[in-house]
Amino acid sequence: MTIVALAGGTGGAKLARGLQLVLPAGDLAVVVNTADDVERHGLLVMPDHDATLYQLDGRFDAERGWGIAGETWTVIEELGTYGEETWFRLGDRDFATHIARTARISRGASVTDAVLALQATRGIPSAILPMTDARVRTQVRTDDGWLDFQEYFVHLRQAPEVREVRFDGIQAAAPTPRVEAAIGAATAVVIGPSNPIVSIGPILAVPGMWDLLGEARARGVPVVAVSPIVGGVALKGPADRMLASLGLESSARGVAAGYRELLDGFVLDEVDRDQEPDIRALGWRTLVTDTMMTDDASRARLAKAVLEFAGSR
Amino acid sequence: MTIVALAGGTGGAKLARGLQLVLPAGDLAVVVNTADDVERHGLLVMPDHDATLYQLDGRFDAERGWGIAGETWTVIEELGTYGEETWFRLGDRDFATHIARTARISRGASVTDAVLALQATRGIPSAILPMTDARVRTQVRTDDGWLDFQEYFVHLRQAPEVREVRFDGIQAAAPTPRVEAAIGAATAVVIGPSNPIVSIGPILAVPGMWDLLGEARARGVPVVAVSPIVGGVALKGPADRMLASLGLESSARGVAAGYRELLDGFVLDEVDRDQEPDIRALGWRTLVTDTMMTDDASRARLAKAVLEFAGSR
Repeated sequence: MTIVALAGGTGGAKLARGLQLVLPAGDLAVVVNTADDVERHGLLVMPDHDATLYQLDGRFDAERGWGIAGETWTVIEELGTYGEETWFRLGDRDFATHIARTARISRGASVTDAVLALQATRGIPSAILPMTDARVRTQVRTDDGWLDFQEYFVHLRQAPEVREVRFDGIQAAAPTPRVEAAIGAATAVVIGPSNPIVSIGPILAVPGMWDLLGEARARGVPVVAVSPIVGGVALKGPADRMLASLGLESSARGVAAGYRELLDGFVLDEVDRDQEPDIRALGWRTLVTDTMMTDDASRARLAKAVLEFAGSR
Repeated sequence: MTIVALAGGTGGAKLARGLQLVLPAGDLAVVVNTADDVERHGLLVMPDHDATLYQLDGRFDAERGWGIAGETWTVIEELGTYGEETWFRLGDRDFATHIARTARISRGASVTDAVLALQATRGIPSAILPMTDARVRTQVRTDDGWLDFQEYFVHLRQAPEVREVRFDGIQAAAPTPRVEAAIGAATAVVIGPSNPIVSIGPILAVPGMWDLLGEARARGVPVVAVSPIVGGVALKGPADRMLASLGLESSARGVAAGYRELLDGFVLDEVDRDQEPDIRALGWRTLVTDTMMTDDASRARLAKAVLEFAGSR
């Protein structure tokens, strides 16, 4: 049994942890968004991969909401004294991740091979697979023009309204052989509760990815999504405002509609129970449950419920 | 007035600090060996440049004899958990130097421009100039074959006997325009008390460097060297054993002879006073003085003595 989860760096990464907690070792492959990736100080930083890695190896800083718990900040502060920009905060342990990964790539490894080698050293029982080895970068258009995603997301703290989103380089991208194999072997696909536009969106926009998932569905593999919008708001990040400023509805229903014919099931929170009929009207099965993931117990509980729901058709 | 010092990472770097202490701001250019440089974890590490930088900006760890005082070791320990080799110890602050430099090079800067930019942020009144921007790497032949220098120097702790030394890439190297200009404007050249084979040797082996120094001498610019061998032994590093196993004499006299017609003055320690006649017999002026540099006062005293000696002909 292989469960494939699609994930960004927050809710999707948390649900991946829940899935890893309840699945037998080796049964989980997490396909992560790489369009948030960014070169900082000559190093390849992969926020969504790394949030998932730190969730799965137990190092994630739940309090801060990113990075590794118990971090120190010597390197970034020293880099500041050398004239490097430091608004993108990276801790010392986190730096080691970026250094080790970039070193492997500079020695000839693909992005996928580099991250799989790092994952192997952590002893995690899951595979975290970059959606593609090609360079794809999300850019957002604000009233001041196009910005790189992390400039908008971290430097400007998501203050500007987003008028348009594009994934630079996506036309030349393709799913990796590892992603193709994982989806080809999947017994269920779970789209995590991550930002549908800038986290799940780039994964689905990789040419060929939608077809891979469609073929899985045609083979009878359930594809279910978990809403990242609860009570009309995103638990973390700008998904709600982004949906609204792009003219979409910031609701479970709005997210569900965006996934179109890809799904056969949708998971929404109990507070959004009133939207269930609308989502069923799209032709999908629904699961209404508590989707809050505040600790490992609630992550495991949601993961178990989602897997049972996926397998119940 | 421009004083040009040639330096490796230990005695030469200490004398550079002494020279900076006694010279007016802007009057010192230190040409450093780059053949010890090494790529670690995808980053360009420049041991001789950095020892000189940390000497000149006051951060050098005199107790340990390398790196920055008060270092922490989070990044290298974390890199070890990711499967990176960690025998080449790099502190967190030191990592920032290598990251900032490699970042500038990856953005298109030459090695010289990258290190000058870092130096500018430290507010030091001297210039530290890589001998060349080309990639030159010292390799030593031991009874087990050719080794990269840092493999021999750090990993094997200089245990093997050195049978032969070569500077890989030296034929394609040239002094940088900054080095040419500094030597062209020099009023004196001081060859620091660094290993004559693997620290000063590569600098002098850069095609064109010997001629630049010879032309300076022909213009009447004094070129003086300070012996790194005192009482037959190197104060730090393997220079004495290296000289012996290459069939040379491990003595002030042996070092002096190696610099051949380049010099017109040689500085030796009081304990080697008995060698003064032999060195004079080579045709050079001599200065016998206390060459120990245990603190800033002794570094400044030696620097002052060397400058007076250089200017006294």
